[in-house]
Amino acid sequence: MIPYYFDWAATSPMSERSIQAYVETARNYRGNPSALHKDGVAAAKALHAERERTARLLKVSPKEIIYTSGATESNAIILQSLLWRPNPGRVVLSAIEHDSVLQYRRILESHGYEVELVRAPGGYVDPESLAQALNETTQMVCIMLVNNVLGTVQDMSELTRVIRNHEQRYGRRVHVHCDAVQAPGKIPFNLGSLGVDSASFSAHKFQGPKGTGFLYLRSESWEPLSRGGGQERGIRPGTEHLAAIVAMNIALEEAVLTEGESLEQGALLRRLFEKSIAEEGSLVKLISPPFTSFHQCTPFIFTCVVPHIPSEVFTRIMYDKGFCISSGSACSNNASKGSNDLLTGAGIASTDAGSAVRISFGADTDEHQIRLLAETMIREARKMSSLMRKR
Amino acid sequence: MIPYYFDWAATSPMSERSIQAYVETARNYRGNPSALHKDGVAAAKALHAERERTARLLKVSPKEIIYTSGATESNAIILQSLLWRPNPGRVVLSAIEHDSVLQYRRILESHGYEVELVRAPGGYVDPESLAQALNETTQMVCIMLVNNVLGTVQDMSELTRVIRNHEQRYGRRVHVHCDAVQAPGKIPFNLGSLGVDSASFSAHKFQGPKGTGFLYLRSESWEPLSRGGGQERGIRPGTEHLAAIVAMNIALEEAVLTEGESLEQGALLRRLFEKSIAEEGSLVKLISPPFTSFHQCTPFIFTCVVPHIPSEVFTRIMYDKGFCISSGSACSNNASKGSNDLLTGAGIASTDAGSAVRISFGADTDEHQIRLLAETMIREARKMSSLMRKR
Repeated sequence: MIPYYFDWAATSPMSERSIQAYVETARNYRGNPSALHKDGVAAAKALHAERERTARLLKVSPKEIIYTSGATESNAIILQSLLWRPNPGRVVLSAIEHDSVLQYRRILESHGYEVELVRAPGGYVDPESLAQALNETTQMVCIMLVNNVLGTVQDMSELTRVIRNHEQRYGRRVHVHCDAVQAPGKIPFNLGSLGVDSASFSAHKFQGPKGTGFLYLRSESWEPLSRGGGQERGIRPGTEHLAAIVAMNIALEEAVLTEGESLEQGALLRRLFEKSIAEEGSLVKLISPPFTSFHQCTPFIFTCVVPHIPSEVFTRIMYDKGFCISSGSACSNNASKGSNDLLTGAGIASTDAGSAVRISFGADTDEHQIRLLAETMIREARKMSSLMRKR
Repeated sequence: MIPYYFDWAATSPMSERSIQAYVETARNYRGNPSALHKDGVAAAKALHAERERTARLLKVSPKEIIYTSGATESNAIILQSLLWRPNPGRVVLSAIEHDSVLQYRRILESHGYEVELVRAPGGYVDPESLAQALNETTQMVCIMLVNNVLGTVQDMSELTRVIRNHEQRYGRRVHVHCDAVQAPGKIPFNLGSLGVDSASFSAHKFQGPKGTGFLYLRSESWEPLSRGGGQERGIRPGTEHLAAIVAMNIALEEAVLTEGESLEQGALLRRLFEKSIAEEGSLVKLISPPFTSFHQCTPFIFTCVVPHIPSEVFTRIMYDKGFCISSGSACSNNASKGSNDLLTGAGIASTDAGSAVRISFGADTDEHQIRLLAETMIREARKMSSLMRKR
């Protein structure tokens, strides 16, 4: 591992307390929570207590928590369920959603749905445009809370107000789904107050285990993605990964309970970075909004442009200097395209989008690392641009 | 935890080596395998090496291994994909499949499929009945390799021969799917030689972590269950749980490499149990076939009937004596019904099915525990039956 890891939005290191919780649970709970014998009952009780803990930390009800393998699956449970409905209508997605939501556009359309993308200038879904996208057949709206590339935070209470007003006008329920995967530990977060019907989470984004997450779901009944033993209200069958769930909750507790302190530290480091590049706008330019408050963006995720240098080239130079930064979201790397679509959806010029690099950090990051990051980015950008002038 | 755990078929304790592998991997690999920087590349290389290890252990090709959250999801990827096909035909399921397969019966039928259940007298799918169930529209056949309640092992090479002959007659491919979740560590197992097109596995059945497994899939292209970042050939998106995958492989290695020794020990213990109850057939009666060879059943899973005593009553008595045994599969407990359907599907009389208890054991089980189990079952069955005579 290299010393300067600035890709926490892709995945964060599992905390030592979370690892220890995994080990202890794996050793102490042998039974299947669905088994009726003592070891099974002990595991079921532990699972019950964990569900209460997740719910308490997020100020929602335990029965609204469905453990899954992460946000991709949680998003799929919500979106794929539309395919079972007899009467397709309209689905509204923000243009800056993660691929695990946006890829349903084509699928929903092939099943007779009309999918409306709401543009999000600068990374913010515009309430006016949202209102215009809603019509009398709208069944679902999906809006990501904290954007994974720009770090922008949506004003969900304003956006849900628009949707609820619309519901009253048409006398028809609209399911509001929120991909909140980048929220815990990155902004002050009160899930219960968002006013959404469902939300997706992955533990590995807040220093918990990978392959583990949950779906917050208020609806009583829901069409599952897969079938089987009836676990998780029948919505997510399969033997529960208790050790990973405990490990996730330990990480969630760390993220939520130390929130004030670590958020302040995040704000301080973000401002330090912004100050360090302030005079060098021609070399390294922030295209995320400058951090002013947590309502508007998280300090922990932002995107910069290094003008005229392709994202892949600059990130590679930075790797050689010992820095892990990203030329897009890790997932979109895999799908062999950058985050250009997302940035275009946010109204960023395509010349800028092609030179964008994402920085994201977390609890282990300190001032020294941030200073070094900014200095190295400026130095390397200067070198590159002088090389390019000579050609 | 109580000392006498006989519910290994529901879930097995994670081995200490598997736990240690989890910890080391969680500590040493910080990056997202999809990220392009050094930490990401290191994780991707490790993932690549693990896929080669899984494949090597099972004598198949690495590109045929798709990591998932377990067998429930793996089965769902195969069965749900049928719903995307434009021309529904016939699907053939053995009557003794797990709920994660059987529950698709209704769903497939509602999508225009004709679902044929092949009965399996005594826990064995009859090749003749299978041949009769196949017709010119048959698209898929699902057969479980090692039954989770009776422990019976299907003669897959004979059954696949029947299916492949049928294919030649009709000039049409039939996808053969095999739920092999109870196979690794419980019978001599060579996945590559089964002749199936896909197979499902869960790590927690062979002392690996829960929430982790894989799908063996020979087909080049397949419709995924959920959408997202394109991981696992696009068939199973979501950030890979590398630590759990390494932990699974360590457990799989233990299961496969120590196969000869531990299978012999299993056979010895099974024969010991059978001998211990042999004279007491009116009190405790084996309804699984007596163990003669691994081709015919695994020694590690079997079902007994305690005549006239409801399964739930007897298992509860045994819990009080410190034994974890099962009144059905853990999953079917959750779905609030016993394994009666499965036993009926295997041609077991319903009076027997209502008094059936499942015993399953594993690597940590010794002679002392088996003797004590048999003695306690006989003693408690005798007590109960004398109580019932008095009434």
